[in-house]
Amino acid sequence: MNERPGNQLFDAYFTAREMREVFCDQGRVQAMLDFEAALARAEARVGLIPHTAVAPIEAACQAGHYDFAALGEAIATAGNSAIPLVKALGKQIAANDAQAERYVHLGATSQDVMDSGLVLQLRRALQLIDSDLAQLGQTLATQAQRYAATPLAGRTWLQHATPVTLGMKIAGWLGAVTRSRQRLLELKPRLLVLQFGGASGTLAALGEQAMPIAQALAEELRLTLPDQPWHTQRDRLVEFGSVLGLIAGSLGKLGRDISLLMQTEAAEVFEPSAPGKGGSSTMPHKRNPVGAAVLIGAATRVPGLLSTLFSAMPQEHERSLGLWHAEWETLPEICCLVSGSLKQALLVTQGLEVDAGRMARNLDLTQGLVLAEAVSIVLAQRVGRDTAHHLLEQCCKRAVAEHRHLRAVLGDEPQVTAELSAAELDHLLDPAHYLGQARTWVERAVAEHSALTA
Amino acid sequence: MNERPGNQLFDAYFTAREMREVFCDQGRVQAMLDFEAALARAEARVGLIPHTAVAPIEAACQAGHYDFAALGEAIATAGNSAIPLVKALGKQIAANDAQAERYVHLGATSQDVMDSGLVLQLRRALQLIDSDLAQLGQTLATQAQRYAATPLAGRTWLQHATPVTLGMKIAGWLGAVTRSRQRLLELKPRLLVLQFGGASGTLAALGEQAMPIAQALAEELRLTLPDQPWHTQRDRLVEFGSVLGLIAGSLGKLGRDISLLMQTEAAEVFEPSAPGKGGSSTMPHKRNPVGAAVLIGAATRVPGLLSTLFSAMPQEHERSLGLWHAEWETLPEICCLVSGSLKQALLVTQGLEVDAGRMARNLDLTQGLVLAEAVSIVLAQRVGRDTAHHLLEQCCKRAVAEHRHLRAVLGDEPQVTAELSAAELDHLLDPAHYLGQARTWVERAVAEHSALTA
Amino acid sequence: MNERPGNQLFDAYFTAREMREVFCDQGRVQAMLDFEAALARAEARVGLIPHTAVAPIEAACQAGHYDFAALGEAIATAGNSAIPLVKALGKQIAANDAQAERYVHLGATSQDVMDSGLVLQLRRALQLIDSDLAQLGQTLATQAQRYAATPLAGRTWLQHATPVTLGMKIAGWLGAVTRSRQRLLELKPRLLVLQFGGASGTLAALGEQAMPIAQALAEELRLTLPDQPWHTQRDRLVEFGSVLGLIAGSLGKLGRDISLLMQTEAAEVFEPSAPGKGGSSTMPHKRNPVGAAVLIGAATRVPGLLSTLFSAMPQEHERSLGLWHAEWETLPEICCLVSGSLKQALLVTQGLEVDAGRMARNLDLTQGLVLAEAVSIVLAQRVGRDTAHHLLEQCCKRAVAEHRHLRAVLGDEPQVTAELSAAELDHLLDPAHYLGQARTWVERAVAEHSALTA
Amino acid sequence: MNERPGNQLFDAYFTAREMREVFCDQGRVQAMLDFEAALARAEARVGLIPHTAVAPIEAACQAGHYDFAALGEAIATAGNSAIPLVKALGKQIAANDAQAERYVHLGATSQDVMDSGLVLQLRRALQLIDSDLAQLGQTLATQAQRYAATPLAGRTWLQHATPVTLGMKIAGWLGAVTRSRQRLLELKPRLLVLQFGGASGTLAALGEQAMPIAQALAEELRLTLPDQPWHTQRDRLVEFGSVLGLIAGSLGKLGRDISLLMQTEAAEVFEPSAPGKGGSSTMPHKRNPVGAAVLIGAATRVPGLLSTLFSAMPQEHERSLGLWHAEWETLPEICCLVSGSLKQALLVTQGLEVDAGRMARNLDLTQGLVLAEAVSIVLAQRVGRDTAHHLLEQCCKRAVAEHRHLRAVLGDEPQVTAELSAAELDHLLDPAHYLGQARTWVERAVAEHSALTA
Repeated sequence: MNERPGNQLFDAYFTAREMREVFCDQGRVQAMLDFEAALARAEARVGLIPHTAVAPIEAACQAGHYDFAALGEAIATAGNSAIPLVKALGKQIAANDAQAERYVHLGATSQDVMDSGLVLQLRRALQLIDSDLAQLGQTLATQAQRYAATPLAGRTWLQHATPVTLGMKIAGWLGAVTRSRQRLLELKPRLLVLQFGGASGTLAALGEQAMPIAQALAEELRLTLPDQPWHTQRDRLVEFGSVLGLIAGSLGKLGRDISLLMQTEAAEVFEPSAPGKGGSSTMPHKRNPVGAAVLIGAATRVPGLLSTLFSAMPQEHERSLGLWHAEWETLPEICCLVSGSLKQALLVTQGLEVDAGRMARNLDLTQGLVLAEAVSIVLAQRVGRDTAHHLLEQCCKRAVAEHRHLRAVLGDEPQVTAELSAAELDHLLDPAHYLGQARTWVERAVAEHSALTA
Repeated sequence: MNERPGNQLFDAYFTAREMREVFCDQGRVQAMLDFEAALARAEARVGLIPHTAVAPIEAACQAGHYDFAALGEAIATAGNSAIPLVKALGKQIAANDAQAERYVHLGATSQDVMDSGLVLQLRRALQLIDSDLAQLGQTLATQAQRYAATPLAGRTWLQHATPVTLGMKIAGWLGAVTRSRQRLLELKPRLLVLQFGGASGTLAALGEQAMPIAQALAEELRLTLPDQPWHTQRDRLVEFGSVLGLIAGSLGKLGRDISLLMQTEAAEVFEPSAPGKGGSSTMPHKRNPVGAAVLIGAATRVPGLLSTLFSAMPQEHERSLGLWHAEWETLPEICCLVSGSLKQALLVTQGLEVDAGRMARNLDLTQGLVLAEAVSIVLAQRVGRDTAHHLLEQCCKRAVAEHRHLRAVLGDEPQVTAELSAAELDHLLDPAHYLGQARTWVERAVAEHSALTA
Repeated sequence: MNERPGNQLFDAYFTAREMREVFCDQGRVQAMLDFEAALARAEARVGLIPHTAVAPIEAACQAGHYDFAALGEAIATAGNSAIPLVKALGKQIAANDAQAERYVHLGATSQDVMDSGLVLQLRRALQLIDSDLAQLGQTLATQAQRYAATPLAGRTWLQHATPVTLGMKIAGWLGAVTRSRQRLLELKPRLLVLQFGGASGTLAALGEQAMPIAQALAEELRLTLPDQPWHTQRDRLVEFGSVLGLIAGSLGKLGRDISLLMQTEAAEVFEPSAPGKGGSSTMPHKRNPVGAAVLIGAATRVPGLLSTLFSAMPQEHERSLGLWHAEWETLPEICCLVSGSLKQALLVTQGLEVDAGRMARNLDLTQGLVLAEAVSIVLAQRVGRDTAHHLLEQCCKRAVAEHRHLRAVLGDEPQVTAELSAAELDHLLDPAHYLGQARTWVERAVAEHSALTA
Repeated sequence: MNERPGNQLFDAYFTAREMREVFCDQGRVQAMLDFEAALARAEARVGLIPHTAVAPIEAACQAGHYDFAALGEAIATAGNSAIPLVKALGKQIAANDAQAERYVHLGATSQDVMDSGLVLQLRRALQLIDSDLAQLGQTLATQAQRYAATPLAGRTWLQHATPVTLGMKIAGWLGAVTRSRQRLLELKPRLLVLQFGGASGTLAALGEQAMPIAQALAEELRLTLPDQPWHTQRDRLVEFGSVLGLIAGSLGKLGRDISLLMQTEAAEVFEPSAPGKGGSSTMPHKRNPVGAAVLIGAATRVPGLLSTLFSAMPQEHERSLGLWHAEWETLPEICCLVSGSLKQALLVTQGLEVDAGRMARNLDLTQGLVLAEAVSIVLAQRVGRDTAHHLLEQCCKRAVAEHRHLRAVLGDEPQVTAELSAAELDHLLDPAHYLGQARTWVERAVAEHSALTA
């Protein structure tokens, strides 16, 4: 039946299957049919249509009854998906109950069906995202605590700086996840609202029964009745897209960090290995960041898709031409890409492989220079800040010029050794003793995560 | 002193002056200096630096002392604005108090200064936006109520549909404003946070005093202490940009609606006129939508700027290279464009000129066809839905074919006149009697506005 | 076999089927297999592999042999589509000829296969686009000439201005089409190039035979051998995307113009009608711009997709992580959207319905004001420019104030009638006599079109 | 006089001063005045205005006469910059020659002035960009040849792969530069065209003299007369923006490569050092990529700005509302950012510091594994491909497992030493002998560069 050319080669890699199912043809059609069925129930409750019409309508509201390819062709003529679907629905009902057919879709307009259907899909999407985010937050919280005392080089502008811990780095990823979970909580009441306005948004065709029906319909669909129809006020949808964009960006940062740490020259952290995953038979050292590629890819694609949603906001009058159309595939695509990014982030962080030894060796690549600050501060307390700073600057320069370790240079400098013992110097040049509030950051991030989860 | 080529020709048109002042060179520099002054006070409170150092540091923390052109040149070498400013600040302090100079900027890193300074600017920006939004909401609430019973053609896909009211249209604009005010309320605690982490984000240089200083600094600046530094977790900023983008989009919709209603062929609504504003001496009928142009322009520009912010999120490790730089002028530009859009929206809506007579005449352009639905519904109650629908369809076709008014065709149709009296037909073909819940939507939008304002 | 959730509901509306076929799973896989087959032939020609290996390899290089769903799953592990395809290809060959299997894919890397395959797809895409553009150009040239003398109101800032002709408006659309055809001609040699570099781009594995093989491979595929591999230099692809973006934008302008002219208040130009197309049984006056919606939709979506391609340009080192991935679905999507936009533009312009009478009536909506300039110019030659201008300004103001036609006001003004006869005034207030170079613009645009086509 | 808040702190860092001067207020105003002066000359040549009017008009056409702040305020009322400028210009002329004032701006419309002025600015911008590109191409050609034999690790997906040369990497950067120079050549005739159409684009006000004046005006400005006015056909401008976007992207890739090579762990290539440049007194090892930050920053910002230009293409009818406005600051900003990127690219590549020794050491980080392919190929010729491949795979695994160098493992393997002597093995494991066509790529890229330059 369906001989349309498929385009799904990268779906398993870039998206989560459950999200793709929400937004596949079947998912779209079913959501619109769910609206029609609920509308029939609501209108029967209020007395606009007979109760006997409900069952036949509901029976026809199964996506499996419909030929999506034929529907696609009809959409090309009608200019939207609701008109041909309602037509096909009518035929389907009439085939079993000619009377009931007259009671379908009463008072609704095409965009009511499409938008409310979309909201039903977005509710499921939000659940999936939220659930994955919570799980990711939990994973990150666990990993942050596990590596709370594992030092590695801080890197600013891609250059080594004073040490940090892997736990603190992970806590940074966690913080972003927690904040976006909070955002989803906040936008939920704005997003999960009914769309129901009829031809121009006034519900005039339903006369006095309009508000009771609208209220009943909202209840049937477990959606909120908004202040008014929002056919050309799209901020609710774009807001959701934006938060998905924030998630994509935050996961992109996670992916970028991991891919940089996986570099052959760094080799500190790795995605979990799996048979055939990112490896190469002739280059067994290769550990291709197959998951990070998805995180970075999604973070590169979502901003453009999002700019389309923002660009499409100035929709004309009561129903827009073209700008509305620009949303139809764009918002679902964002949901799918973010779902794929989350799936990969979970895989990557759950099985994260850490080489703490290599971290320690890398920290020493600059032969102690990244800890010059630590020595300077202690020395300042004894000889004054200016003297200490000047002294360290000289020693650092000498270490670089002579390709020696700063520890050795300091140990040779009488002005230093007069103040600091060998043990003190060893201590000061140990990254594990210059981690500042790294552990505090982990604790605070975990606490915020837990507060939201509880 | 400042001979740099200026680029401000469109500032008065596209931005609000107060917002431009927040983000001008002076504003940027002062915000960074405010951070340095507050840091000195905080470190004195905790005992890290002597209280005597505070006054000289504060005295030097006035933007007026600094040569922005020279600073600009130094930025090109340093790669950020904090390094040269702190250097210049040191000199300025030292000129008056050589001792105090040693106590400036202790424990902070360049990005602490720039980011915290930015947050101070954004706090002011948020106040300006919020205040304008509240005022715009109030204006729209008033106008929506004023025109709650003024019918005009509903327009879907740019074609006439059943009537709506101008009040309901304005209520749609209002709803979007109210929702974005709510969003600003929600994001505020995430946005107004201190940035303070030192070299790699651990605050290691401050040892045991780190957290007390951070807390005191946050208090001095009246900012919240976040869970951890966010040098490369930029979701807080991008979220703010997104809500500004939603505002730009919603105002773009307002601008588009008005510009379409101002078309020579529609001529229903106008921006307030002013001497020299959008007029033409040889074409006195012209009413150029000078304000709407700004609303549409901003709604076209902000999405692109926003996509830059989203694209710049995957910032590497502890401090990013290039992606951070991409934010520096982009977020301020968004603030400025949205401020200008709000300014124009206020001007346009406060002085909105409405031609209700023209609206009525335009409603009749299709000679009653937009009210066929109204007749059909009443007729259906008498002769059954199918018969009524078929009858109306025939009459509509005849009206179109014969270029007659639907009222006349209906009046000539015995099957219709048998059921509906002339008075009933007149009533049914009066747009004022087919406005459905238009007034309800106004009331609900105003109520949501009032609830937030109270 | 393929039970993946499909997502094609809007394909028939938004894309051209032929383009979707180029970029469907089958199209992608076949293009990669075409590369492998050509590589075998090239390597046999140069003597690297035995001639006997070619036929078995070619036989296996049919997309129909492969299970796309299984391939999709394998891609999720491998991180690209070439590794699993080459593996499956090997098995397919070996099933028939164990020897030949050893000679497949020699010296190539995954990205060689994917990129060269993509170029083969883009060649076909370019042909489709170019052919549609040429046909659209021809249609527009015909229509521009047909309506070269049909006046309608010029509209600036959506306000009536001096008259133009429909032909001139169409010539504007034509000019943009012609320029983009020229652009495609120019970029073609940059785009249609082989990708072939092996592991890191040096072709080292092929030793001395590298260049002869590369040359032979390019010949087999009828592609140019570029200066060097371009695995991380993506400007060729993004340039193509940009020209597609220009086409989308130009067609978006065409769609916007048509949708505005179709407004109920203007009603000057219509998309061709078809049964069930954009109509409404209860609102027979409605002529929904179903085609224009696609043009505007595509012009709204492509810019965002394009910004992704530009954002993905800074690809690291010899092979990028994530940024490359961001291209895979984005460039095909742009091709598909532009193909759909072209398809609709052809439909809309070929069957364009024009109401010249309504244009004439609309031109008179301002009661002659749009022709005040015409009178002023002639009058200036007789009484001087200042006097003429002042006189007209007064008359225009009077016409507006008194709701009279400018012709009547001028006819009552002795200072005017002293210089201009009634016949002269009638002539000057006839839009058909104030069309300036409208016909010249048509001729020039048609000439440029013809020059390119010849 | 000018007390508007300036916003130029990052100009010296992010833009080239010459480009900023092209697009500063002075530059904008002067370009519009150049149009007015040329129009007067053209109209005098054709006899529309007296020759005596030209000199007074030209005298007034000096930007220095005008108060930009006042102009800015007037723009906010007029909705564009030409109306108030022409008004001010009239006053300025009249102050010296009341007669001449009457002859200014005849037959032109505001957008003619603004667009033609813009084209004059873009011509200068194109010259600056083209000149910088040519210089950058020359620098890259020189550096590519200089390092044509300097091996370093190829890196795919940020993992070490077979060796490449620095020259080949630089040749890749060069190729992109050459292609964009070619693109600028091709688009030039489309971009450098006059805008001249009068009120609605027909030039009707100029009657029979329209085309001669248009031709003379084009000559005066040394621009081409296009097929027709292009007030709402913006593809010419967006095309230029796109090529600038390609340049930004290609330079972003250059910047990304350099920043990655500068990482503390890689340390192979550095931006030239300068006093105070990207250094740190306490961290003397730091070499902040101050220039690369600009390259990456511009490549992150331009795509968003560009998407605005594409989004703004569907401009309505004869003159657009809002979409045109969206271009005014966006295209100049793109020019300025690309100029800054080019400036930094020149600085970075001219003074590039290369540590070939470190490259060699890094190549050995995987202890020979990146050269396994080289051994495998030679061995295959002796023992057959399958045996060779299997053997190498085993040896590689052993090398990894035992943390030994592949050379040592191979030297211990009798099946290998039976075929390959110690000298042969040494040779095969020397990266300098496995560089394939690296030198060819350099030669070809330099040849393409030279061909264009000649």
